[in-house]
Amino acid sequence: MDSISFILFGSTGDLAKRKIYPALYNLFIEKSMPQSFSVIGLGRRDWSHEEFQRNVEDAVYTFSRSSVDKETMEQFLQSFRYHSLDLTEREGYDQLLKVVQERENELNIVENRMIYLSVSPKLFDIAISNIEKSGLTDTKGWKRLIIEKPFGHDLESARELNRRISTVFEEKEIYRIDHYLGKPMVQNIEALEHSNPVLQALWNKEYIANMQITASEIVGVESRAGYYDKVGAIRDMVQNHILQLLMMTSMHLPHEMNAENVRNQKKKVMESLRPLTKANVAKEVIRGQYGPGVINDENVPGYLDEEGIPAGSRNDTFIAARLWIDNDFWEGVPFYIRTGKRMKEKSTRIVIEFKSPEGKNRFEDENLAPNLLIIEISPNKGVTLQLNSKNSLNNGKLEPVHINFSKDQSDLPEAYELLIADAIKGDQTYFAHWNEVELSWQWVQPILETYEEDTAPLHIYEAGSMGPKAANELINKEGFRWW
Amino acid sequence: MDSISFILFGSTGDLAKRKIYPALYNLFIEKSMPQSFSVIGLGRRDWSHEEFQRNVEDAVYTFSRSSVDKETMEQFLQSFRYHSLDLTEREGYDQLLKVVQERENELNIVENRMIYLSVSPKLFDIAISNIEKSGLTDTKGWKRLIIEKPFGHDLESARELNRRISTVFEEKEIYRIDHYLGKPMVQNIEALEHSNPVLQALWNKEYIANMQITASEIVGVESRAGYYDKVGAIRDMVQNHILQLLMMTSMHLPHEMNAENVRNQKKKVMESLRPLTKANVAKEVIRGQYGPGVINDENVPGYLDEEGIPAGSRNDTFIAARLWIDNDFWEGVPFYIRTGKRMKEKSTRIVIEFKSPEGKNRFEDENLAPNLLIIEISPNKGVTLQLNSKNSLNNGKLEPVHINFSKDQSDLPEAYELLIADAIKGDQTYFAHWNEVELSWQWVQPILETYEEDTAPLHIYEAGSMGPKAANELINKEGFRWW
Repeated sequence: MDSISFILFGSTGDLAKRKIYPALYNLFIEKSMPQSFSVIGLGRRDWSHEEFQRNVEDAVYTFSRSSVDKETMEQFLQSFRYHSLDLTEREGYDQLLKVVQERENELNIVENRMIYLSVSPKLFDIAISNIEKSGLTDTKGWKRLIIEKPFGHDLESARELNRRISTVFEEKEIYRIDHYLGKPMVQNIEALEHSNPVLQALWNKEYIANMQITASEIVGVESRAGYYDKVGAIRDMVQNHILQLLMMTSMHLPHEMNAENVRNQKKKVMESLRPLTKANVAKEVIRGQYGPGVINDENVPGYLDEEGIPAGSRNDTFIAARLWIDNDFWEGVPFYIRTGKRMKEKSTRIVIEFKSPEGKNRFEDENLAPNLLIIEISPNKGVTLQLNSKNSLNNGKLEPVHINFSKDQSDLPEAYELLIADAIKGDQTYFAHWNEVELSWQWVQPILETYEEDTAPLHIYEAGSMGPKAANELINKEGFRWW
Repeated sequence: MDSISFILFGSTGDLAKRKIYPALYNLFIEKSMPQSFSVIGLGRRDWSHEEFQRNVEDAVYTFSRSSVDKETMEQFLQSFRYHSLDLTEREGYDQLLKVVQERENELNIVENRMIYLSVSPKLFDIAISNIEKSGLTDTKGWKRLIIEKPFGHDLESARELNRRISTVFEEKEIYRIDHYLGKPMVQNIEALEHSNPVLQALWNKEYIANMQITASEIVGVESRAGYYDKVGAIRDMVQNHILQLLMMTSMHLPHEMNAENVRNQKKKVMESLRPLTKANVAKEVIRGQYGPGVINDENVPGYLDEEGIPAGSRNDTFIAARLWIDNDFWEGVPFYIRTGKRMKEKSTRIVIEFKSPEGKNRFEDENLAPNLLIIEISPNKGVTLQLNSKNSLNNGKLEPVHINFSKDQSDLPEAYELLIADAIKGDQTYFAHWNEVELSWQWVQPILETYEEDTAPLHIYEAGSMGPKAANELINKEGFRWW
């Protein structure tokens, strides 16, 4: 493994605490970190190295999935240094470079530099600019950029951001995080398909009636009202996570599984995704916003009554849509997506519904359940196949049985562990390529504009429900139902 | 449900005790017996009705899968009468007819008569003849014959027996028992396939590499030495049970599931089964006989040392074979069968091995296990699918997982319950049609003749093994292995 300098912008932030440090610690104990590595934490606070280390330690103790060993922790923390930096101040970066180089010399490691931007997107531009000028990226080893979402606010801003980044990093050096791609069950989708001829044989329009992607939350806007009201479900979930899940589930399996092939296949999905026009957004995409309701026996306020939401906001807290992939594999197969806040259950899952057998009348009086492949991503993790089986204890009646065929998933690695490990190895498979991001924004753009102009209905749904009735009507059109 | 007279030849025998009475009792408590029914037990012993009833009661207490309730038992036994009869004596049958009619009058039931022949096959002929002459089958209601195996000793004797029976009963009145067809998991095969589009889609030569039917026993000849030495595994298991399992697994699903369609499809399988010639029996069929060995840490004698086996016997206690079904569905798919005594484990199962995906080199370095569908018939009962899944706890390695998708199978009905219930209802689906029996004997005939002439090798295998090496070589030819 290459030795590295891990230069973390936003080291005092919430994401670093909850996800990045615990991930690094778990990689460390699993020997998935290079023998020599240097972590330079950056932030505005005026911390000493020791204060920083104590903060990292606290974070790991609080959020690590594996228990912490004191001695190992001490070893781990030796790699951490802190550097106080105002991201907007050019000068600080020169000093940063010195700190990085000093540590590289101390550890006698090659100048492989991983720059991790875990800061507000407003700061992306100035940070990139200052990084470039500082010479931090003129390394004798490799340089890589890990960048957190959101990647742009619409098609144009995303393109602008990418242009900016591209002056400093090549595409093969850019690791755009979509943490859904780091989830073990999402990474299992293609493995399932490519390692099981029986699933592979079925994974096409011949046998699949429809696919459904659900990402529902119970929580409301929480403390993010100001941010969320400008973003909505369409940007917060659909443009990135949901479309990534769609790509992962529907891409044609490449002959060889590597980053280039996988991302090429994902791009092809996006290129085949039937474009929306402002004229049909209202018909194909359901916009919802939660009203008041009851969740877990407690009254919860509607979106408009949440603290920090402007009066009369027309923001979408729920999106359902019907998508078509116009290629040979998926011709005629609808893909349904839905996501929202304040829904009945917390669940991210993909359900593949298989077609009924040809001789449909064989079941006339049996009322058989369809075969389903259910990939549960979170909070439950697992893969289930719903088949029918004869129950000899019930007069040989055919009954659906659910079969779970994933191993015990109780202690799976976190998405960030898998993603950071991949970035260290230089494997981009589970990072979003610019093509995917651009095509996703392109597909979403007519929706954004329609909502901007407010020319599509906003369906109010009761908090604690599974979304507005219109979302059911959308799927009922083809005779299906949400699973 | 039609009221019936259940006229049981062989009512003092072992099968009646172990299987038939417990089955009738369980059907009785499950209300699957007609409201009015009369059981007339026949045997040579000079029993009173009461003695007979006590014997039935004992049998049910000893062998019933469900617990017995005293009051219910008393009710149940009221239907049982005994009649002493020498099967070979013409006169006794007139009296039998009277007894049957008396009970019919007493119970005021229609003359629906189920004649159950559970006697030595030597007596089939004379019993049928006497039944005919007695007028027992000149009923105002329906008449049916349930007949136990063996149905003939070779093609010619089977034809002769069928000719004899056919003078008295029409094919639609004849219920030839092959109790393997009564086993819940065997009856589940077609249900699985026809109720699950995903399995249906895969059930053909496109996706299936081979099918394997195993029926292995741990026991040796036990107390049946004299009988078994004349029969061998080929008649005891292959001609009937194994070929029936083959038909059930490979038949093309009829559009509508009924006795006529199912049995028609099974016949088509047998018609497409590639015939053997005496010239290739030795190549396609492996004959084995167990030598001494160790089972469960105990030394067990070889077949030739078993009590009652003639010195130098060349009898087959093991058969393995490779079969081909020459039709559009199964072209190029080998079917492997094996059955034997004194093997390592007791197991009847069907294993369907699926082909590897097209792009075979995708797995070059992964050494993936094939997908398997495993139907365990006895002693374990269940359906398992072996798939591969990514184990995120083991570096995302692909590992085979076994998924069991049958319901709890702990208290399944016995084969005889299901079969007798069907016979009472007049459903012949799970009984062997004459066509199937005749075609099975026809297929087996060249093997019988080859062994008669002793022109094929007899492979001695160690007791406690899975059969002779030659059985492995047979399947290795196409690059497969036994599962």
